Amino acid sequence: MLTLYHSPISCSQASRLALDFAGAEFREVKVDLKTNEQRTPAYLAINPKGRVPALATDRGVITETPAILLYIAQTHPGAGLAPLDDPYALAKMNEFNAYLCSTVHPGHAHRTRPERWADDAAAQDAMRAKAPSNMASFFAYIEKDLVKGPWVMGEQLTVSDFYVFTISGWLASGGIDVEDFPKVAELRRRMAKDPRAARVLADS
Amino acid sequence: MLTLYHSPISCSQASRLALDFAGAEFREVKVDLKTNEQRTPAYLAINPKGRVPALATDRGVITETPAILLYIAQTHPGAGLAPLDDPYALAKMNEFNAYLCSTVHPGHAHRTRPERWADDAAAQDAMRAKAPSNMASFFAYIEKDLVKGPWVMGEQLTVSDFYVFTISGWLASGGIDVEDFPKVAELRRRMAKDPRAARVLADS
Repeated sequence: MLTLYHSPISCSQASRLALDFAGAEFREVKVDLKTNEQRTPAYLAINPKGRVPALATDRGVITETPAILLYIAQTHPGAGLAPLDDPYALAKMNEFNAYLCSTVHPGHAHRTRPERWADDAAAQDAMRAKAPSNMASFFAYIEKDLVKGPWVMGEQLTVSDFYVFTISGWLASGGIDVEDFPKVAELRRRMAKDPRAARVLADS
Repeated sequence: MLTLYHSPISCSQASRLALDFAGAEFREVKVDLKTNEQRTPAYLAINPKGRVPALATDRGVITETPAILLYIAQTHPGAGLAPLDDPYALAKMNEFNAYLCSTVHPGHAHRTRPERWADDAAAQDAMRAKAPSNMASFFAYIEKDLVKGPWVMGEQLTVSDFYVFTISGWLASGGIDVEDFPKVAELRRRMAKDPRAARVLADS
């Protein structure tokens, strides 16, 4: 049995969606980031990084969204959530997910957790100030070059869609209108019609 | 035929090593980051992100180190550079690579390219000041929890080894002694004995 440790306000929603859409049997445990539950000894015993998501399996715990997403797709091949039989297409999907985790998510975190990268309050303010323009430029690139439409990879819904659905949901809090990115906005509307995605939206 | 666009001073060395160790046929093109060649129209036509690595294949260009590394392992299965038949072990390898690309590499870049995240010079200095302690804590975690030894995944050399070999090579420039992390240091020594890795070291 799988257990997903997650928070509705974090990137872990992508993994929750992937499990839902894969038809996986799983238990979910919410971690309260607002009270820093992710830094309690009990949670650090599960994920020493003090972050969500963490996916506990019978063999051990997997962390990092791109790794969890591919694992879910690979272990539920019938759901067709990744181009598993085409290494090039799979690489393009992984490339998209790696861009979100290496560039876009840290770009957002410079507004919400700038203390990770500088101790000085004025420096943290300078990071907060720049973060929205960075996020806008990342999504302009995603819109122009990465989302084929209607889904990220084209006609096939993949785990990348859960990931960009989750992260694009943070744009409004930074004062960015997702409608500036029509393909991303349309992808969000399409996915939000599904009850599983609607549940995530209602929960966050 | 594959073409790898890379720079000896960047994370793209991991992809170069993976191609070498996979026994892949490939052409290499060096991109001069010191003169910002990565931002020329000619290079942006290959990778609009203006970064290395980029791996041109017959079907298109793949970017992002974790995606390229898995692609090389999958398309050269005889080299045994990833646990391709074990989704859990593969997820642990991908988790390691995702940690390097999402946390460790950006942690380093706050010393070398802080202008990405704040326009203010004092804020950039504050980021430079904090980056070494972040990098030391990331490698303390890698040492304690992630490197099984002798390689990252244990007895099997995988693409994760090329990635951590490359990024750990940057520690000295931030004033951090890799010998503080004995398993990482030993992995570096083991790999440096191989002529393919020695070539990368000589080139950087």
